[in-house]
Amino acid sequence: MVLVNGVATDRLAVDDRGLHYGDGLFETLAILDGHAPLWSRHMARLHRGCRALGIATPDTDALHDEAFHLCAGRPRAVLKLLITRGSGRRGYRPPEPAVPTRILMLGDWPAHPPAWHDEGIDVRTCDMRLSRNPVLAGHKHLNRLEQVLARAEWGDEFQEGLMLDIDGWVVEGTMSNLFVVKDGTLLTPPIDQCGVAGIMRGLVMETAQAIGIPCEERNLRREDLDRTEGMFLSNTLIGLWPLRSLDGRPTPRHGCVPVLRSAIHERHGVPQ
Amino acid sequence: MVLVNGVATDRLAVDDRGLHYGDGLFETLAILDGHAPLWSRHMARLHRGCRALGIATPDTDALHDEAFHLCAGRPRAVLKLLITRGSGRRGYRPPEPAVPTRILMLGDWPAHPPAWHDEGIDVRTCDMRLSRNPVLAGHKHLNRLEQVLARAEWGDEFQEGLMLDIDGWVVEGTMSNLFVVKDGTLLTPPIDQCGVAGIMRGLVMETAQAIGIPCEERNLRREDLDRTEGMFLSNTLIGLWPLRSLDGRPTPRHGCVPVLRSAIHERHGVPQ
Repeated sequence: MVLVNGVATDRLAVDDRGLHYGDGLFETLAILDGHAPLWSRHMARLHRGCRALGIATPDTDALHDEAFHLCAGRPRAVLKLLITRGSGRRGYRPPEPAVPTRILMLGDWPAHPPAWHDEGIDVRTCDMRLSRNPVLAGHKHLNRLEQVLARAEWGDEFQEGLMLDIDGWVVEGTMSNLFVVKDGTLLTPPIDQCGVAGIMRGLVMETAQAIGIPCEERNLRREDLDRTEGMFLSNTLIGLWPLRSLDGRPTPRHGCVPVLRSAIHERHGVPQ
Repeated sequence: MVLVNGVATDRLAVDDRGLHYGDGLFETLAILDGHAPLWSRHMARLHRGCRALGIATPDTDALHDEAFHLCAGRPRAVLKLLITRGSGRRGYRPPEPAVPTRILMLGDWPAHPPAWHDEGIDVRTCDMRLSRNPVLAGHKHLNRLEQVLARAEWGDEFQEGLMLDIDGWVVEGTMSNLFVVKDGTLLTPPIDQCGVAGIMRGLVMETAQAIGIPCEERNLRREDLDRTEGMFLSNTLIGLWPLRSLDGRPTPRHGCVPVLRSAIHERHGVPQ
């Protein structure tokens, strides 16, 4: 089920700048009983992204109406929302006025084995690196070739890949953010040069602080991950996945994961 | 006039990975009397890009037939060709097998004032920087937000913007490559960390060598451009545009520009 500018269709104008330049943004929302529990946080990030790209911010109420219409009666689903700068003539120059395109796509909830949640996942370090650009960092824009090429490095033998930036700093997973426990403190790489500032990453940081787990952003090298008290990955669809191994080497499990899950569930209504 | 997978339509499947991730490549070809004089060079670059992205290389003969059909009888036009990885389910992982999408769009020849060709253009240095990633460098892929944001920095007061990379190295224009004359030698920045390896850039380098103008790739800082014997920009639609000013400061004109234009015209059948 897809809506393009409010119309049920699976087709898009071929001159859309989302296609030609990746000139747009997206959000992927967990839908629970017909609602998106983290709607306002997704909208806030989308608005920040629109401001960074100079795209007119969408009418959040209209978006909400369309999303509500699309998701009604669905116990569990994934809503992908794309905002592009809209159609334009050939050339990088943004058209003026531009009429942004909004696309809402409703899909099935991903059926991951419960063991990934309970026992943890196997993760590899990707060869593909993330380039650094502070203007684009944090935003969930449509320029995602680096993630695509990273994900193409393996098949089913791992559940996620860890990405370093071009200078060798640890950043995130291809579709998740990374948390590391060291000396009882929860660490996560800053997202100021590259990477996506995940909604669940924000919830983890806020919740950790609220329940008294020290949490801070810190620059980490790959070798820093060889000696930790535990690691986990976060995104709004998977919640928190502990690591079971990194590059074939077993990683310890830390008790903060179920504690954080439960606290985030209580505070924000997302599933544990 | 647009062909999507051989069918005349201006609509594309909304699940195309070109839209979702910029997961594809493009070429922009000058059409002269119904033909693309630099067809084989564009195809060679497209194939290199497909190999880098792991996209099945398109059948060049079939592409040529479609292009010929679309361009027949057009004295002068622009053909934009896009190859994407095709449709896919949500998620970065490339589908297997993937069926690439090919899009051919025929547009009008850009009507630039002849003075830009003869007297030169005014260029600014953009604030927006290019990120560095050697895996993507050189390829004309669909992740072009940096160029879009650079081009959004000015209106009609300049004709092109110069882009530095994130480390301050001069790379190229938003839609062109840069050549600089210093001590009688033609210099152009290497395209090994970012930027697009322009077809016209390749012709300029080859032709310079063939007619005895020394030409080499060299890393340049912005301040190196304050003392030159001349500068010009290249792309296959504009040919060579000399710079008249950079950031409001007049730049000298060098006699190599008409010499190179004439030699490239004779060797490759492109307009002067």
